[in-house]
Amino acid sequence: MNGNDVSALVFDTFGTLVDWRGSLIAELTAFGRARNIPADWAAFTDAWRAGYQPAMEPVRTGRRPFTKLDVLHRETLDRLVKEFSIAGLSEADLQHLNRGWHRLKPWPDVVPGLTRLKKKFIIAPLSNGNTSLLLNMAKNAGMPWDTVLGSDALRAYKPMPEAYRGMAEFLDLPVERVMLVAAHNGDLGAAQKQGLRTGFIPRPQEYGPHQERDTSATGKWDIVADSLEEVATQLGV
Amino acid sequence: MNGNDVSALVFDTFGTLVDWRGSLIAELTAFGRARNIPADWAAFTDAWRAGYQPAMEPVRTGRRPFTKLDVLHRETLDRLVKEFSIAGLSEADLQHLNRGWHRLKPWPDVVPGLTRLKKKFIIAPLSNGNTSLLLNMAKNAGMPWDTVLGSDALRAYKPMPEAYRGMAEFLDLPVERVMLVAAHNGDLGAAQKQGLRTGFIPRPQEYGPHQERDTSATGKWDIVADSLEEVATQLGV
Repeated sequence: MNGNDVSALVFDTFGTLVDWRGSLIAELTAFGRARNIPADWAAFTDAWRAGYQPAMEPVRTGRRPFTKLDVLHRETLDRLVKEFSIAGLSEADLQHLNRGWHRLKPWPDVVPGLTRLKKKFIIAPLSNGNTSLLLNMAKNAGMPWDTVLGSDALRAYKPMPEAYRGMAEFLDLPVERVMLVAAHNGDLGAAQKQGLRTGFIPRPQEYGPHQERDTSATGKWDIVADSLEEVATQLGV
Repeated sequence: MNGNDVSALVFDTFGTLVDWRGSLIAELTAFGRARNIPADWAAFTDAWRAGYQPAMEPVRTGRRPFTKLDVLHRETLDRLVKEFSIAGLSEADLQHLNRGWHRLKPWPDVVPGLTRLKKKFIIAPLSNGNTSLLLNMAKNAGMPWDTVLGSDALRAYKPMPEAYRGMAEFLDLPVERVMLVAAHNGDLGAAQKQGLRTGFIPRPQEYGPHQERDTSATGKWDIVADSLEEVATQLGV
């Protein structure tokens, strides 16, 4: 497809743009060392992320009113601190650790890729993160968004149809003028079902060295590329 | 006050950042000339803006469900086209003219001022404009927002308390860490009542050469400055 076919590119964030696993392991390990708290911080990080989908599920099914991801992350953190028998954390410590999700680091191609794409397209995250999380992450990492409308603005968690359609509505664009770029085939499939265009970038290290899921494109996506820079090239920027 | 006292600056847009009157008169006049449609386009522009507050009022009082400003602008436009006996406009023409609000031009200090302020603060509009209006305006004019959350994200029109409080909530900041910068004393008064910090910049030409309202600060604002550049200087950026 041609770059003139779309007006806005929206991006999955956790995994697609930022290395949540590497960033959190590094931050938690440094924290544990400084505070003399030994723990398997890689396992802790993986467990934290494993709690992500289950925590959103009651909101998706309507059993729980919309609740910000920061709150869901914190609930999982509180549970894991007990499960991993980590002692001596103050309320300020827990808040600081929870805000680690606001400080995730982007993959190396992300800032240069977004900077190129911004010249031609409206660029924005389309993430389950809340607005402040995505905004603080962007300020910290230099991600040059045109706007940041988190899941708390959309009042929906992907893959709920409302998340994809709501973003197009905020942008006042027909769904087919909006492309989702993501490293997850499931996210792209849900977006495509709502009429959005789709772009896949594999992030084979997202879940660490033994990742099996999403190592390649498994759907008919409009674009498949190895990096955001290559997305820009394919879209003629 | 000190720049360290706040984390985010949010900005009234119509009048404070963009010269809606001059921009629309210039655009409508050029359109009328090209299409050979004579009209008093200055009076037309003033009438369009005069319909602004009354159009939002039923939403503020709850008599009408939240309706985007683009829609309200269009309703007023349709009425004025009849009142000014302007003939020969197609649906595409009307859509184009209504999108004139997406193409308003900033005052000269705005882009350099925002660019400086962005280094230290989160910067965002806090406007009754909808997200796509503010976003297209920013793309067009080069306004370097960190995020654009329009009134359709807040589901409230200023001076409703929900508009000011909702913005602080999206940013996950206490209200006193957020400053509204505006050229309108009434807007600042409503923000101050909700606990926000306030900065006043006069725009004595907003309503044309005979403006009488808001020519100077009439409240106890935290900052009074002649331009966004001076706001940056006072806040130590």
